[in-house]
Amino acid sequence: MHSLNESREIINDAIVKINLSDDPKELFDPIKYTLSIGGKRLRPALVLMSCELFSGKIEEAIMPALGIEIFHNFTLLHDDIMDKSPVRRNNPTVRLKWNENTAILSGDAMSILAYKFISACNENILPHVLKLFNQTALEVCKGQQYDMNFETIKYVTSEEYLLMIELKTSSLIAASMKLGAVIGGANAKDTDLIYDFGKNLGMAFQIQDDVLDVYGNLKVFGKNPGADIVANKKTYLLVKAIELASSQQNKEIYNQLEKPDFDPEEKIKIIRSIYNNLNIKEKSKELITDYFSKANKTLEKVSADHQKKEYLRDLADTILNRNK
Amino acid sequence: MHSLNESREIINDAIVKINLSDDPKELFDPIKYTLSIGGKRLRPALVLMSCELFSGKIEEAIMPALGIEIFHNFTLLHDDIMDKSPVRRNNPTVRLKWNENTAILSGDAMSILAYKFISACNENILPHVLKLFNQTALEVCKGQQYDMNFETIKYVTSEEYLLMIELKTSSLIAASMKLGAVIGGANAKDTDLIYDFGKNLGMAFQIQDDVLDVYGNLKVFGKNPGADIVANKKTYLLVKAIELASSQQNKEIYNQLEKPDFDPEEKIKIIRSIYNNLNIKEKSKELITDYFSKANKTLEKVSADHQKKEYLRDLADTILNRNK
Repeated sequence: MHSLNESREIINDAIVKINLSDDPKELFDPIKYTLSIGGKRLRPALVLMSCELFSGKIEEAIMPALGIEIFHNFTLLHDDIMDKSPVRRNNPTVRLKWNENTAILSGDAMSILAYKFISACNENILPHVLKLFNQTALEVCKGQQYDMNFETIKYVTSEEYLLMIELKTSSLIAASMKLGAVIGGANAKDTDLIYDFGKNLGMAFQIQDDVLDVYGNLKVFGKNPGADIVANKKTYLLVKAIELASSQQNKEIYNQLEKPDFDPEEKIKIIRSIYNNLNIKEKSKELITDYFSKANKTLEKVSADHQKKEYLRDLADTILNRNK
Repeated sequence: MHSLNESREIINDAIVKINLSDDPKELFDPIKYTLSIGGKRLRPALVLMSCELFSGKIEEAIMPALGIEIFHNFTLLHDDIMDKSPVRRNNPTVRLKWNENTAILSGDAMSILAYKFISACNENILPHVLKLFNQTALEVCKGQQYDMNFETIKYVTSEEYLLMIELKTSSLIAASMKLGAVIGGANAKDTDLIYDFGKNLGMAFQIQDDVLDVYGNLKVFGKNPGADIVANKKTYLLVKAIELASSQQNKEIYNQLEKPDFDPEEKIKIIRSIYNNLNIKEKSKELITDYFSKANKTLEKVSADHQKKEYLRDLADTILNRNK
């Protein structure tokens, strides 16, 4: 069994070997750029690890795993247009390095390439794989739409927020694991269990991401510290804080959210101090631990080698304790 | 066997019955709007007709045919962003009626829905169908990229232009026909022949579209007359005119193309008079007839009922003589 880091290496090696057309270069250069600037490769690594949980052979999972990574990067390319983001993974976004039209069309081509790679699985599981992927891809779009809707909605409940990240983030992580299990020949019960494991892991992962924006080791995290706060992003921390705040604190929060001109550092400091006062970090960590423990309970029920399952437990630990 | 118009009606009836989610409505309303404002439904009708050429049953072709139509409409949605188009089929474009982010994300969801519908074919042909569609969809992206490149290239040869429309337009028409043939159970030789038929038909169709912009019955055509001329669009007529023009005429053409301020009517009149002088309309019609005759020769070789093939010949006639 390969660890998370080893699985990531397998994926990184395979990405380098992807042989994309050179013509027209205006279409393919941005795709090569996007795939080359890194990223955690979490989703494709999960495809491999989940496959390996049930089967010794992971070769069959590599192409579909790359398809998942290409799809994920396609969504980032288009999200960056919608959010007008200048930076992704410490590099200029495609929309900035080229332009928005390029980001749209190269993104479209990536979504097609994603299908091409995902379809490169054994023919007898193709209908199952496609059904899973079609449903998941549509859920990611729905999640992105809710996320955009939140920008103009004043009050978002934590339930609404959790549904959004379930669609936008967790469903693809869950589907990655299910895909690996299907390729690995797992039975229906185990593929469903592994999907649930991924769902809970994905929820923990996204809330951890929200926490890291405010409390992460900023040098390691690689994003602008407090970027979510500056952008008024509805994160778990913000929606939870608004739910728990006194009327005076809520007034202060909305004062910060609605100010057209502000000093970013000052805004981060004020919002963070409200979070601290309301124990938002601890409450978020509790929720992460909840999801983490649900994930582990589900994993226990999976019929697979005990030692192999240990690798997935380690993986969950890594996500829980990551600082980037 | 159903005629083109009857096949279109079957498609229109099926489109009305598509049951899309209502939630989030910001994502699905623009999709419903796009599918409801019409269009010629040419591609899905071709899927049905090509299927019926080889099989009495077209029910199995309806879902994949809808997939092709959804894919085509997805490309229009994104093309309209890239071209900043205000109007499509006499209605405001999604980017104008809603906004660009909506057009991006609803388009993305449509591309996924396209795969979902296309995958709803018999499992034993699914690998073949997907391979065809993946390749075609990527060709459409390449064609769109070349088309965008042409905006900033001063000299485009007619060969380059023809390659661009082969990718952007003909390949999807060809693939629609091949898809129908595969669903209809045609053998490999016939599916390849029908693909070639569609390729030539598609070329004729696109060049006819270029001609109609300048010489169409404007009330019927439903686009702004001379819109391509006003937009400096590299059409077959323009690239051919530049190829054939005297140095004096070329100077006049580029004078018109490069003027920042102009009277649209005046510009159309001048360019059209150069086209007339160079017999561009006749030369375009000759090329259309060439493609048309290639298409018919290919059709002759297809092993299918003679009377049924007559319907496809009629279809080619309809496209050749259409005024919208």
